[in-house]
Parts: sequence; C-alpha cells; structure tokens
Amino acid sequence: MSHLYRHLRVHQIFGANTDVGKTVIAAALVRASTLTNHNTFYLKPVSTGPPQHADDVHVQRYAGPHRHLLNTQCLFRYEDPVSPHLAVRMASQRSGVESSAPSDETFVNAIAEHIRACARPGFPGHMYVETAGGVHSPTLSGTTQLESYRPLFLPTVLVGDPKLGGISSTISSYESLVLRGYIVDAILLFRDDYYRNYEYLFPYFAERGVHVASLDPPPPLQGNLNEDISATEAYYANLAPRSLDGEIFHALRHLDECHVHRIKELDSMPRRTLDSIWWPFVQHGLVKSEKDVTVIDSAWADFFSVYDSSSEPSACSLLAPKLDGSASWWTQAVGHAHPSLALAAANAAGRYGHVMFPHATHLPALKLAERLVHEGPGVGWASRAFFTDNGSTGMEVALKMALRSFSINDKELTPRDKKDLWIIGLKGSYHGDTIGAMDATEEGVYTCEWHQSKGFWFEPPTVAIQNGNFVVSVPSPISPSTSSVHFDDLHSVYDIQNRLHSPLADIYRTHVRNTLQALRRKGERKLAALVLEPIVMGAGGMIFVDPLFQRVLVDAVRDKSLFENPLPVVFDEVFVGLYRLGMKSFGPLLGVNPDIAVYAKILTGGVLPLSVTLASERVFQAFNSPSKVDALLHGHSYTAHAVGCQVANTTLDMIEMLSQQDPWRLAREKWSCGARRESAAVWSFWDPGFVRSVSRLAVVHEAMTLGTVLVIKFKDDGAGYASHTAQNLLRSIESPVCESGALSAAPGGAPFGIHYRTLGNVAYFMTSLNTSLQTIEEIENRLWKTLSATIKEA
Amino acid sequence: MSHLYRHLRVHQIFGANTDVGKTVIAAALVRASTLTNHNTFYLKPVSTGPPQHADDVHVQRYAGPHRHLLNTQCLFRYEDPVSPHLAVRMASQRSGVESSAPSDETFVNAIAEHIRACARPGFPGHMYVETAGGVHSPTLSGTTQLESYRPLFLPTVLVGDPKLGGISSTISSYESLVLRGYIVDAILLFRDDYYRNYEYLFPYFAERGVHVASLDPPPPLQGNLNEDISATEAYYANLAPRSLDGEIFHALRHLDECHVHRIKELDSMPRRTLDSIWWPFVQHGLVKSEKDVTVIDSAWADFFSVYDSSSEPSACSLLAPKLDGSASWWTQAVGHAHPSLALAAANAAGRYGHVMFPHATHLPALKLAERLVHEGPGVGWASRAFFTDNGSTGMEVALKMALRSFSINDKELTPRDKKDLWIIGLKGSYHGDTIGAMDATEEGVYTCEWHQSKGFWFEPPTVAIQNGNFVVSVPSPISPSTSSVHFDDLHSVYDIQNRLHSPLADIYRTHVRNTLQALRRKGERKLAALVLEPIVMGAGGMIFVDPLFQRVLVDAVRDKSLFENPLPVVFDEVFVGLYRLGMKSFGPLLGVNPDIAVYAKILTGGVLPLSVTLASERVFQAFNSPSKVDALLHGHSYTAHAVGCQVANTTLDMIEMLSQQDPWRLAREKWSCGARRESAAVWSFWDPGFVRSVSRLAVVHEAMTLGTVLVIKFKDDGAGYASHTAQNLLRSIESPVCESGALSAAPGGAPFGIHYRTLGNVAYFMTSLNTSLQTIEEIENRLWKTLSATIKEA
Repeated sequence: MSHLYRHLRVHQIFGANTDVGKTVIAAALVRASTLTNHNTFYLKPVSTGPPQHADDVHVQRYAGPHRHLLNTQCLFRYEDPVSPHLAVRMASQRSGVESSAPSDETFVNAIAEHIRACARPGFPGHMYVETAGGVHSPTLSGTTQLESYRPLFLPTVLVGDPKLGGISSTISSYESLVLRGYIVDAILLFRDDYYRNYEYLFPYFAERGVHVASLDPPPPLQGNLNEDISATEAYYANLAPRSLDGEIFHALRHLDECHVHRIKELDSMPRRTLDSIWWPFVQHGLVKSEKDVTVIDSAWADFFSVYDSSSEPSACSLLAPKLDGSASWWTQAVGHAHPSLALAAANAAGRYGHVMFPHATHLPALKLAERLVHEGPGVGWASRAFFTDNGSTGMEVALKMALRSFSINDKELTPRDKKDLWIIGLKGSYHGDTIGAMDATEEGVYTCEWHQSKGFWFEPPTVAIQNGNFVVSVPSPISPSTSSVHFDDLHSVYDIQNRLHSPLADIYRTHVRNTLQALRRKGERKLAALVLEPIVMGAGGMIFVDPLFQRVLVDAVRDKSLFENPLPVVFDEVFVGLYRLGMKSFGPLLGVNPDIAVYAKILTGGVLPLSVTLASERVFQAFNSPSKVDALLHGHSYTAHAVGCQVANTTLDMIEMLSQQDPWRLAREKWSCGARRESAAVWSFWDPGFVRSVSRLAVVHEAMTLGTVLVIKFKDDGAGYASHTAQNLLRSIESPVCESGALSAAPGGAPFGIHYRTLGNVAYFMTSLNTSLQTIEEIENRLWKTLSATIKEA
Repeated sequence: MSHLYRHLRVHQIFGANTDVGKTVIAAALVRASTLTNHNTFYLKPVSTGPPQHADDVHVQRYAGPHRHLLNTQCLFRYEDPVSPHLAVRMASQRSGVESSAPSDETFVNAIAEHIRACARPGFPGHMYVETAGGVHSPTLSGTTQLESYRPLFLPTVLVGDPKLGGISSTISSYESLVLRGYIVDAILLFRDDYYRNYEYLFPYFAERGVHVASLDPPPPLQGNLNEDISATEAYYANLAPRSLDGEIFHALRHLDECHVHRIKELDSMPRRTLDSIWWPFVQHGLVKSEKDVTVIDSAWADFFSVYDSSSEPSACSLLAPKLDGSASWWTQAVGHAHPSLALAAANAAGRYGHVMFPHATHLPALKLAERLVHEGPGVGWASRAFFTDNGSTGMEVALKMALRSFSINDKELTPRDKKDLWIIGLKGSYHGDTIGAMDATEEGVYTCEWHQSKGFWFEPPTVAIQNGNFVVSVPSPISPSTSSVHFDDLHSVYDIQNRLHSPLADIYRTHVRNTLQALRRKGERKLAALVLEPIVMGAGGMIFVDPLFQRVLVDAVRDKSLFENPLPVVFDEVFVGLYRLGMKSFGPLLGVNPDIAVYAKILTGGVLPLSVTLASERVFQAFNSPSKVDALLHGHSYTAHAVGCQVANTTLDMIEMLSQQDPWRLAREKWSCGARRESAAVWSFWDPGFVRSVSRLAVVHEAMTLGTVLVIKFKDDGAGYASHTAQNLLRSIESPVCESGALSAAPGGAPFGIHYRTLGNVAYFMTSLNTSLQTIEEIENRLWKTLSATIKEA
C-alpha cells in the first residue's frame, strides 16, 4: 500500500511517452537532490536494453560532485530494448527456458521492500522511482504500469512530451493518472522552442493546480563517446549547478513543499475533522481525541491506506494498510478504487452528467433496469424497476408500493385506516434510517421522536453453527417444547423444499396462523404487507433467520383462508442481495418470489449511492389510472443518475465474470456436500473448518457464515462480561502484526491491521466478491490466534 | 449537438498521437467506402502545413477507381506545420494583421453545417472527419480537440500508435475519449512486427468491447516523387483492393454495423423503456405510446441530444438538441457533461472508491464540510456538516436534529408527546418525498397512505411582477384590508432591514403572534421547530414568498415572550441554495441565520446525488452525551462518498470563478437600481424588460424571477381554461423552430426545442449558472413569440 515517510520523500517518475527524457530529468533531480545534501535513492524497477546503457548507469555517471550520497538500484533487468512484457518473453525464448514474468504482486512487493529498506529515520532523503515507457506501457506481467504501481500510491512527477503531439500525450497521460487517483505533484518537460508545448501546458495545468517546469534539453549525441560524455556532463552541470540555482532546484523545492504539505495536511486532518464533521452513528461525546479519527488517505482493493503519525520515530511508513473488514458498511463488491468503475463513472459523467428521468430514457438506466428485471433478481416475477438514491429511499418506495397495492383492493378503508395500516415483519428488522422506513420496524434505540412502529413483529427462529453443529434455534413463543433442531450440514438447513414436510414446518405454520388470526380478531389494525430481509437481518445484529420460517410467512400471507387478497410481499435485499450471501437473490432458495424487492449497496460496486426497487406487474397496475394523482408521486432529483447506473452495469458485468472463475468454484466446492450439487447455492468464501472450529471456542456462543459474511456471536453472561472480552480481544486485531520476514496479503506486503465493526456482542467480517484467498486466510489466522489466546488467558 | 443520420454514417478520426497514420488510415477507409459504392465525404476541419502536402490532397490522390464518389473538404487551412493554435498565431504574425482564431462555437458550427450539407436522404454515404495531431492537441482557439469536438458527439475511430510507447499513448488517448463520453467504435493501427503493439492492444480492448484492427504500414518514402506515388498507389491498392477483401473492409463493415446497431438501439429504446421502467412522478396510464418517451442519447452544456426517428425522411439529424429548460429538475450548475466534473468523479473513484465514514475522514469530505461550514452558507452560524444522499434524506436528518434540539430542553415531554411534536411551516412547502419529510408538510396529492401532517401551515404573502409592477400579495387571513402592496423595484421588496419598520411588518407580526398564541392555547400539540424554504417554495408551485414574512416568523419563534426556549429554525435550501436564486444563502438577505440548513441539487454540479445538512453548535450539542444511544443514529452506507464530495468541491470552485466573471456582473448590473449597489444580491439572469413585459400579457397572471429561475403564472379562470391554454401554447416550444439561415445557440447551431416542466398553471424555466446570454435570449424570444401569438388568437 501507500508509502509515506517523514524523512524520505519518494516520487515515482512517469513519462507522457517513451523517449521524452524521463531518465535525463530523473538524473537532473537526483543530482539536485545530492547537491542539496540529501541521501538520494534512484530506483529503476525494470530496465530493458543493453546493461551498459541502462538508466541507472546513466544516473550514476552524471550524479555530480555529491555522488557519494546516491544509491541506485534496478530490480529486474532485461536486455532487449522493447516493452518489458516483451522483454520477458524474448529473454525466455533466448535462454530456451520457459520462465514466467513476475506477478504484479511480486513486482509491487519487491519495490515496496526496497523503499522500506531505504527509509531510515533522521536521515533526510529523496527517492525517485523511474518507470519504463509511457504511463500505460505494460510492465513485466503485462499489466500497464499505472495499474501495477497503483497499490504503492506514490506521488508522481510526470515527464511531459516536448515534441509535436506532445501536448496531447501529456494531457492524456495526466488524465490516466488522475483517473487512478494519483497525486500529480509536477510536470517537467524539455523546452522545445519550435513546438513550445510548455507555453501551452503551463497555463493549462496552472488552472488545474499542477506545477509545470521546463528544462533545457540535453545536447544531441555526436557519436563520439568521450565528447558525448563531457557534453552531457557540462549539460548536467549547467542544469543542476553547484550554485543551486535554476528550474530544477525550483522543481526540487516544489516537490519538497508538496511532501511537507501532504504530511502537514494529514497531521491536521483529525483536528479539522473534529471541528467540522458530524459523523453518522457516532456519539461524538465518546470521541476523546484526535487518535479516534481514522485518516484514510486512499484505498485499494480490500485495504484502506491509513495515516498513523505515531509510527514515527520508527522507520515505518506513515501510511499503513488496514483491511476494510466490514466492506465499508457492506458496500464493496470488487474492492476499492477499481479503475474499471472509475472509468465507467467518468464515461457516464462525460456523456450525460445527469439527465432528468420522468418521461425520459438513457442507455445506462435502461440497461440496468432490463438486466435487473429480466435477467437478474427480478427474473420470473418483476416487471418494472423504480430508481432511488439509497436503500432507505428504495424501501420507502417499496412501502408506498405495498400500501397502495394492498389498499386499492379494500374499498372500505377510510383515510384514517390507511394511516394505520400495519405490516408484518420480524423482530430485529432494519430497513434504513429515514423515518418512514424506520416506522416499518419496532421502536428502539435507532428510532427518533416521530417514530411510530406500524406493524407486528414475529420473533424468528435462527440458524447458526453451535459447537460445530448446524442448529436452528426456535424461540419459545413458537414452540415451548422444541427449542432447537440439529442438521447434518449447511445444505440441509437451506433445503426448503425438503424441510416443508418436516414437523418443524407444521409448528411454524400453526404458530403463524394462530398469531395472524389473533391479530385479525383484535381487528385494531389492518395487516397490509409482509416485509422481510431474506436469510439475514443485517443491522439488527447479523441474525441468520431460519429460511423455512420466512417461507411459511410468505405462504401464510398468500393463503386465501387467511387473507381475502394476498398481501404484497417485500424483500429488502439491500444488504443481502446480489451475491453478498453468495446468491443473486432468494426466490430460488425460498421457493417463492416477492412482489417487491429492493437493491442497493453492492449494486454500484461500492462506489456511490443508487437503489432500485423492483415491482411485479400487479403492484405496478395498482398505480395505473387515467389520473395523475394516482401515480407513484415519488422521485428524487437525481433519479436514475447515469453515473450510478453505468457503474452498476459495469459492476454487474464484473460480478458475472467472477461468478464463473476459480475462486468462487473452489469456495463452492469446499462447502458442497458431495452428491447434492444442485443445492450448491449455499456456500461461503470463509473456510468451513475454520468456522466450525470458531464455533467450538469457549467464549463463542455461535458462529455462522454465508457468502462474504462471517458472524461470530460471543457469549453474553448477562453482566456483559463476555461481550466486553470480545471487544478487548478484537481490539488487538486492529493493529498490524509483524511476522518476521513474511509479507502480508496487503499490496506491498506490509503488516496490516483490521478495521471492523461490531453489533452488540456480535462481531462480523465481510469480504468483497473478489477478495483473495490469501487475504481471507490471513484474517482467519489472525482471528484464530487472537481467540485462542483469549481462551488461554481465561 | 450530436449528428446521426440514417443514410450517412459519420465517424471522427482521432489519433493516439501525431504521426501515427491518421491520414493514411483515413485514406484507406475513404477508398474502401468508395469501392463499396458509398457517397464518401472526407472532412479535414483544420489543415496545417504546406497545401500541396495537405491531408485532403493525399486522400483525394489515392481515392482509387471510384474517386468520383468522393467529396473532400478543408475548412481552415494554415501553412505552418505546427499545432493549429500556433499556426493561427504564426499566420497572423506573418501577415502582420492581428487576426484572432475562430472561436470554439464558430469552429463547431462550421463542421456541423458541413455535415448537415452532406446528409441527403436516400443516398447511403460515409463521412470521415479527420482531426489534427493527438486527441488532446489544441485546436485553433487553443481548446483541445477532444473538448472542441465534443458537442458534435461523433462516434470515433481512434488511430492507435504502433511505435515504442504506443501502447501507452493508445490507451491513454482512449481513456481521455471515454472520459468525455465518446463512443469509440474501433481502434485501427499499423502493424509493427518489432513492437507488436497490436498484439497487446487486441485482447486489452476486446475485454473492453472495442474492435481493434491492424493494417500494413505504408512503404517508406524514397524521396523520388514518382516512385513514391506509385509505391503509395500500390500500397493502397493492396490495402483496399477491388476484391473488397482484407482488414480495412472488415473495419468498414464493423463501422457500418456499429452505425446500424446504434440506430436500431435508439429505435428500440422507447419500447424497452415502457417495458421495464417505472418513472418517478409519472402516471403511466397517461403514457399513450412510444412517442411519449424522450430518448436522451447524450447531453452537453444546457442541451440534451434527443433521438427523433420521425425526422426521417427529411435530411435532419436523427439526434436534435433540446434545451434542458428545467435544469434537469433543478440540478444543473455548469451544464451537462462538464469534463472537469467527470475528471473529478474519476479521480475520487480511482483514489478511494467509497470508504466508510463513521470515525473516519478523507480529504474530499473534509474539504467540502469545511468550505460549507466555514466559508459557504454556514459562515457565522454553522459548526458541523452531516452528509446524506439527497435533499429528502438531508431534510429527514434536519427534522431529527430539530426535534431532538427542541425536546432536550423540555423535560416534561412524554414519549407520546414526542411523537406528536409539531412544526411550523408555510402552505405550499415541500421537503422531499420520503415519508418523514412529507409529514413536515400538509396532506395533499403527493402524500401516501401513511402520511400524517405534523404541523401548522401559515398561508404566506407572495411576491410577483404583476402588470409590470412589483407587488406583494397579502392573503386575507393575514389582513382583510391590505390585499397588496406595491414596490418601485426588486430591491425594495428584498430590502428587509428597511421593511422591518413598515406597517406591513406590524401586520405580519400581529398575525403571527396571534396565530401562535392561539395554537399554544389550544395546547393539543407542542410546536417544536420552524421549517422554511427561504424566498421560493419550489415544488409547491414556485411560490415567491414575501421574505419579510419569513423574517417575522423567525423572529417570532425566537421571541422569549412566545417560547420559553427559542425553536430551532430549519432552512430547506435544497433547491434555492448555492446561487440557484443568485445568492449563496439567505441569512444575509433575511438578516437572520437558521440553526439547521440543508443543501443538495446544485451542490454536486448536476452530476450525482449528495446532500449536506449544516447544524449550529447548539443543535450538535443536543446529541452530545456519554451514551451512544443519544447520538444521531442516522447514516446511509455511502455517507460522504468521496466521488460526490470531490465533484461538489470542483463545482463550488467553478461557481466561485463564475461569480467573478462578466456574465454575472452584467446580469447584476441590469437589475441594479443605480445607487443601491449594496443590495445587488437580488438579481436574475433573465432580462428585466422581458419579465416585466411578460407580466403585462393578457393570459399572464403574474411573473417573477430571481437568479436562474423564471416563473410565469397563467390566469386560471376557475374552469382551468387558462392553464389549458398555457399548456397548449407551451407545447409548441417543445419543437425546434427553424429560422432560415440563422444558427441557434445550441452547439452546432441546429434549431432546438425546449424541454420544460409545469406545476399546475405555473410554467417555469431554469438555467445553469453559466448558461450563455445568447441561449437565454433565444428562450426569451421563443417565449415572447409564442405568448404574443396566443394573445392574437385570443
């Protein structure tokens, strides 16, 4: 991940093209750095071409009078003067040995290790990491450089192109850098007095806040080695003179200022945050100091890059990787800062911006609606997609749909009755923070002054692994006699078709029917809809509900003997949908489809908010009339914003690809129970052995997992002791652990802490849909060690 | 705007760099097009260098046996072989005459006129528009080509770079195109068997759905003119042979397919939309046919590019400009698809994606919070920024803040009381579509089953221009005797400081005090907060409220003799804030600040949803305690998403620039009343003479304007006749009007229709903050002509 050291300023040098003078400008910077008495490091990770003409040789040769302060390094050297990805292949062909290119991971880790080795506290230094070719030239593995260097997130010096066409390649290269989030500190280029690109680029980039400097070009080579060397020596002596005057020293001081400014800004951010920001779901009265503020400088894949000023005076980077253990509030699909999603966002912003949606259509929204309705979770039941901005507003729309869809069939309802329509739900439900969505849940700590709980809430049976066994726990209101039922494996629990004929199903049916009949007899309120989070209730405490109970509920509200008209069924899939639990949606598993379902979070790949509410034709028709006032009069200004829709489409494309690839196949196999392949829908990215073992630990009440989600519920002895233990032991996994010699799964291999969130005495961990097996195993190992240690203490 | 013709396929040819063979590949395409019997047009808008070596001469020379089908054209020719922006300057220096470069508008209009002239129904044709240099090479005005061609939105053939470094420049150029929303149909490049860039680029772009083809490179020139000509002729004969075989014909067919597919897709979109999308605020029962669907293919500045298949069989483009007359539901700040905002979105997506916000901070959110709290509308009163996703959720948070802030001071409130806390507002208020925000308004057509109006609503006095005069209309409940008060000018109406001492102020005070005391005497409900849309109530009907009345209300709820503790005051500035009405915020004008204020819409430059609720320290402290359950337990998953915050920061930067520039200064001057410069805060982009004249029309009840908003309220004779008239006459402005010979203000100069929305018998029009004066004047002229015509008919 990112590297930032107080005493070592590191810049990567990218070129707007090949042959624009990267090495000459790097050499000039190196010389200027040594002349200003800095320990200077020049790293050329990949060198292609004849060794005697290698860039590090050039830089070393012309380093000037203070060359003793210089350390040069090359990590991968190839002889052919071609793009690195071809050089690897040609070297392999020449040697006759089949040798593969180093992976992106190996590549980044090698650079990261070198940088770490150069950072020593108290020795002010400058480091230049010179890339090869242009910004998008392929590196050894074939990945383009911009991408392969991205995990290191080094600030950039872009060497501009002074030639004809160079304005274009400089700006385009800059945009490709910006698109990957890079900080571009300066653009340096040679002065060409005919094309005068610098004249154009100077104001262009001044407007964009980027420093541009032009430098004298090197003298043309004459072919006489000695003359060329002395001409070049004179050139450098003039460019970076002992007097410390001139453009290169301006540039040097500018880079120093950028470095100092960046650290200063990071240092200031906790204080400034505490002075201006009101966090969601945070009691600011419990925020004691600036140390309680997590400063996120950037993110990549499953890791935040977090600023930790306390790492001084050790030689550690001020920015350290921290695993995003809650998938950033359950939103991440393919990891942070994926360039495909950034490009998708940019494309829609550049083509449409936002265009108003009523009576209109545009491709990103239309394609998203079609794939959700006709191919995605809506297949087989949905007819329409309604867009809003987040899960909570998506649920508000779902509620409006459900209430209308019910009330249109009951002509005797008074306006007063309509205000008091009740929904049926489960204790522990949570449908978002807006007041209407909150009214669709019980009163509790999250509800505000205006809250009025509008429904009846069943206490649900739950699924978990207890002491290594799959157990459905039945609360006593449902059955005083049957408190738990054991199952052989995960698939048996989720094999609803089979379980419909079990004694437990009858117990559920009886309980549900009796309860509903009793409610109807009381007759205070009309029951108007069933609203469920299928399989897992998230914010309520990551409660894995027995799916059989949810199925029985759906059957009940559609049972003519109970309800004259079937009640509309709403599936709140905001959190659980779109493969968060390893399944696209839940109709196939439960054997019943909803009338309304809501999607958000993962939908937009963890980039920006968007929600879609799907509805059946019956629900849609409830609003259809010749009168405008009967319409669904709900619509946010940015409804179906093109940027969100385009990012969602790209995300869904990527998920489809992932679902076909090895990691998913392997995870599914781990959880499959031999013969029953057809029910392989139920699986997890987490290791079955690990989860069962955790469930057997003394401090653990139960554990459970599906898809990306791992939940550990700690024992709570009433005094809250156990949950206190849990908090304590989990706190230790927030800090990085350095295993001597071993590189971590974080890009660059630095030790990483784990950022996680708890819900009461429940700890949960959540991956993206493409989190590497190595990362998951490291989390499992960290958890296991921490929990085992607790047991020994206890 | 966009050009798309059924019979003429038009592509622009961009280069990944200069000297990559754009002209050779264009010539090959031209030759292939003629050989396949297409009318073929080659346009080189700008040619630099010696005329005898100009690209159009080359293309003409090697056009092959069917050259009679070819028409070549160059629009701007310069002799120096340098970047166009320099060529203009050098030509000017050489001639000794100070001549300026054609503006971007002139440039685009010239190309558009040429394209229009070439499009003839029934004659299948191909057109190639070849740009100069690389994608970002400056055009004549200095604007880079990507930007200056963008209004035409032509599909693109990118000529890739086969040389060392060419992989990078090809990918970067592609990304710069994508960032501006362009459709890239194909990448063509020469085969270089040493660097083999095509080998790399082929799978790279296949993954991204872009066709790549490689072509034989041209023979090297030998310096002998005749030999070179015959070698080149042979080269082309081989590249595009009479047999119609080979890569160039594959490419040609691919481009044809892209063209056909695009039209087919546009044709299909209305039907598909009606089959999958549920629009906001639309009665689908009134949507009669596919013609009722507006297909938006792209957008630029203030214009949609709208598909109209009915334009056939005329020679008009299938895509026509349509003015976005409601600023896309009041969101647009700087026009659609601004590249700076697209780049800002991409940068944040590439650096962070989304990172979870509780206890965390990142630069985009922190900077946005700071500028809103400390420099923006919060200056002088706000202490904190709370982020949500849209205006409605921002208002839900504001309500939660206000209710808590009130109830914490009243220890006697029971839980039941808290559910029934009332707010004070105005009839016609609207605070968003979620159920809680709706409960803060009267019951009406927009409210759903669960709605419970929780407040008291004053009928407000209003401001308008009636028959040329500024009038405040006072409803009879406030004063049975004073029904209207006339003012000399706009500034007198909004000079609150002065009006506080007027008789009307006393009338307001008495009415407000009596009403509030009566409500308190009844004592059914506790009054807990004042919630206002300052100056204009938007969705309620673009009602310009007398600001004096709002000031008196604020004073009343802070009056100790009326309320023991001052009631919190919420300003809903979602629509009106951030210069929509020409003012950053309303505290300075009203002379009082709120305790809570909400911003959205314009905040993110009309790109994507984000909202910020600002709160005073007093409000913040109402949630501060040592207990988590006292916190503001509200937070959406994407709270403070970096993409939205970054786009907002860039938008606010741009608005600051605009506020210093000539168009704003000129508009302000038009509305200033000589001496009273200090009150120049009240102004409009619309012409004062025009608005006054409109207000005098027989069909018009009144008109009003501030900032970007123009409102015309038509007379309603009770039978709704007038509003029907209004509907009818406005319908005619939806269609483009062709004034013979004149170019419109739409980019490219094509006639444009106006897309607008009405609210009952109110029509409103809204510009961006940078809409050109020419555009505004054309809207005014269209409106004037239409309204005058109606009068003659009547």
